[in-house]
Amino acid sequence: MSKRRSLPGKLERRLRRRLGQQRLLTDVESLAVYECDALTHFSAMPLAVTFPHSTEDCVAIMRACFDAQIPVTPRGAGTGLSGGAVPPSDGGVLIDTSMMRSILELNTVDRRARVQPGLVNARLSECVAENGLFYAPDPSSQSVCTLGGNVAENASGPHGLKYGSTRQHILGATIVLEDGEIIELSDEGDEYDLLSLVVGSEGTLGIVTEIEVRLTQKPASVMTLLGAFGSLAGACQAVSDVIAAGIEASAIEAMDHLTIEAVESSVHAAGYPRHADAVLLIELDGNPRDVSADAKAIAEVFEQHDLLSFERANDPEQRSRLWQGRKGAFGAMGRVAPNVYVMDAVVPRSRLQQAILEIGAICTRYDLRLANVFHAGEGNLHPNISYDARDPDEVDRVLKANAEIVRACLDLGGTLSGEHGVGLEKKEFMHLQFGAPVLESFASIRRAFGPRSLMNPGKLLPTPRACTEVKGPAKQVFTTFEDLV
Amino acid sequence: MSKRRSLPGKLERRLRRRLGQQRLLTDVESLAVYECDALTHFSAMPLAVTFPHSTEDCVAIMRACFDAQIPVTPRGAGTGLSGGAVPPSDGGVLIDTSMMRSILELNTVDRRARVQPGLVNARLSECVAENGLFYAPDPSSQSVCTLGGNVAENASGPHGLKYGSTRQHILGATIVLEDGEIIELSDEGDEYDLLSLVVGSEGTLGIVTEIEVRLTQKPASVMTLLGAFGSLAGACQAVSDVIAAGIEASAIEAMDHLTIEAVESSVHAAGYPRHADAVLLIELDGNPRDVSADAKAIAEVFEQHDLLSFERANDPEQRSRLWQGRKGAFGAMGRVAPNVYVMDAVVPRSRLQQAILEIGAICTRYDLRLANVFHAGEGNLHPNISYDARDPDEVDRVLKANAEIVRACLDLGGTLSGEHGVGLEKKEFMHLQFGAPVLESFASIRRAFGPRSLMNPGKLLPTPRACTEVKGPAKQVFTTFEDLV
Repeated sequence: MSKRRSLPGKLERRLRRRLGQQRLLTDVESLAVYECDALTHFSAMPLAVTFPHSTEDCVAIMRACFDAQIPVTPRGAGTGLSGGAVPPSDGGVLIDTSMMRSILELNTVDRRARVQPGLVNARLSECVAENGLFYAPDPSSQSVCTLGGNVAENASGPHGLKYGSTRQHILGATIVLEDGEIIELSDEGDEYDLLSLVVGSEGTLGIVTEIEVRLTQKPASVMTLLGAFGSLAGACQAVSDVIAAGIEASAIEAMDHLTIEAVESSVHAAGYPRHADAVLLIELDGNPRDVSADAKAIAEVFEQHDLLSFERANDPEQRSRLWQGRKGAFGAMGRVAPNVYVMDAVVPRSRLQQAILEIGAICTRYDLRLANVFHAGEGNLHPNISYDARDPDEVDRVLKANAEIVRACLDLGGTLSGEHGVGLEKKEFMHLQFGAPVLESFASIRRAFGPRSLMNPGKLLPTPRACTEVKGPAKQVFTTFEDLV
Repeated sequence: MSKRRSLPGKLERRLRRRLGQQRLLTDVESLAVYECDALTHFSAMPLAVTFPHSTEDCVAIMRACFDAQIPVTPRGAGTGLSGGAVPPSDGGVLIDTSMMRSILELNTVDRRARVQPGLVNARLSECVAENGLFYAPDPSSQSVCTLGGNVAENASGPHGLKYGSTRQHILGATIVLEDGEIIELSDEGDEYDLLSLVVGSEGTLGIVTEIEVRLTQKPASVMTLLGAFGSLAGACQAVSDVIAAGIEASAIEAMDHLTIEAVESSVHAAGYPRHADAVLLIELDGNPRDVSADAKAIAEVFEQHDLLSFERANDPEQRSRLWQGRKGAFGAMGRVAPNVYVMDAVVPRSRLQQAILEIGAICTRYDLRLANVFHAGEGNLHPNISYDARDPDEVDRVLKANAEIVRACLDLGGTLSGEHGVGLEKKEFMHLQFGAPVLESFASIRRAFGPRSLMNPGKLLPTPRACTEVKGPAKQVFTTFEDLV
């Protein structure tokens, strides 16, 4: 591992002049908080943390770092699960966007808002609720995660099934490149679609300093259904059949037996039947007649697949209770073991059952406790492995199992990452999914935006020459369940 | 203008070996057909036209041209309206995809198809109709234009209002770069979104040799409404009010008085009231109850805006008659004058009325006959100027008016191009919409894909050093109406 640099004095003075005492952290005690994101397996201490208020502040920070040749890593709420907000191990400057949380413009007629990147995802929906609108992408961390982080990771969530991921909801962005150049991007016109390119680029092309988002009209009615099944295979088949029947649910979530046990033992009891092998949580929205008709059709499909119980909820309180189990699932895993590794992989929906079986077999082989929570409608799996980070042998088995799970999903025709990004976690696996020509195109895109590779280096792409910087994580601290609640 | 090259003998032999006698044209009589696309204002004769059957043929052609340093321009059906399929004036090789028109894989369960780029847009919908599916993007030229051309231009059409443009319907693509390298792109995973970047790139990044498209379930019912209005302003206001009422139409098309006159005088009489100043054609789709309710609400909105007559059609024959006028509009303009220039610009929907007024004033000032056909729901205008290409003074006025219309739309907060692309036509206007940093990013993206700039050079981006090649069009032949039918 390369030696940590120190913050050049000239750069510190320049940043201090711009940001003052409060908005530039350089003392080790403060910096320690910013060593990692929610995948704490990867960590490195930044040289400094900056808190800009505006695009202009970001330009000043980027220019100063550019002149000093110091890399910059943007950071939202630090809820990322792939190490995307970790600075390089030889040191870099973090831009924390938490002080850039304003709604700059709100146009409820055209249903769009221009916001700063530090705005919390759920806060935006709260602010426009009285206009009958909401912001659709709903990552599980939405009560704390930021829109800037969502853009970086192309975040999705349970309702991505109907509403798509972040990319489908971004109408424009202001980006500051490594040299401080500002570019304004929009989804209008049909030239090179740089906006789509920036969404999901994990901070490697520039820092997003303003975001124009699409707001969505709230559906006339919403209904949540809970089906409990005697077998996970039955639940998976029910998902296929619901979709084959042409029913367009807004969310189809699945949880397995270990997850149900953990959820029901946790404080937020959702009323999931403990004896069930799996539950499906389905949400429908639209006009009340269609919703009722679809709910009836789903009940009929469920009954053909080892259904133990069925519940439907219209009113917000009941619906919220049913969702509580899903939303508290990661936190509830804390009852099983002190640590949990939330994985992220995608398989074609038709291979869901097989993927679950293979992942189960891998975890059995490595003697690990596996719980599955997944966006079943999209084939996006989140195998959660509970373990004890104080046991180095178990940690080693977790990492090996993760690698095997990634390979198994790719072999089933899936992809590396559904919504957590590649970051540090999966860059070594990129060559399993992409051929050399695509990886070369990725690298040349990155060079096109930042020839000096100062924007969040070491993430997303395998970086052959620089990989010593990040290959060995500084510490093997894994995610604790508190990070994930 | 730079002198036309000749096809190097070695390159000709290499291409001939691969393609044989039939699939390589080099004689001037044959090449003359390929001088221009449907914007015949720009034309240049290719050195050769090639007809590949497969990705492998394309690789062979690209490698041969790369070794000879000869630029390559992909061409679909030649229906483009911005000069995107015109070779450089000093000569280049065309790749005509018309022999690559197979459906390679069809998966009606997952609603996707893998096709060759020369497949005609409407043909795909025909082939999947019996499975209750269709391919949604519907450019007016859909009965002849190809999916490869649609991808190059990010084509849209009347139903883009509901279904989006080509970019929203492409799930994957095989691209061959200038040096013959093949890259496979997919919309899965959340790494750099090269697929979105390739859609709309006008053949400047590579040639698309296979396309994976999304198929859409046919709606349960469709209804077409025709409203005739006493004033264009009233029609524009009706569009705003329909949208403000939250009605989600699948298409909202408008035509002005001169268009109605031309349409009703042409053979395909659609029954549009000749005395009307404007007609709106609105399509609704979905479940029959919602469609009926929306049609009723639209009728009520229309009645508040100078409505002369209102018609609604459910059955396919009647609906087809109403659409006949819209679909035949460009062809019908041939009755007004021997030539027509179909322009393409976008304004925010709220500025539609003002844009129409300003465009009218510009054409009056230049003494030109203007007819407006537009995708009103999206603010995408197609001002059509009828003129006589044999009159050099009139041609000059048409070009000046086009430039002023572009500026006027940009001043209203619009964009250069809605769906026709930039091509040769609008590259000189790119700096009006985009600042230098964005144009520099575009240029670096292009270099990232093809450092030697052999893929369709001279299109899309202002090319300062090479602009002598294309600035002066070889001939001032304008579009005749037959090209546009």
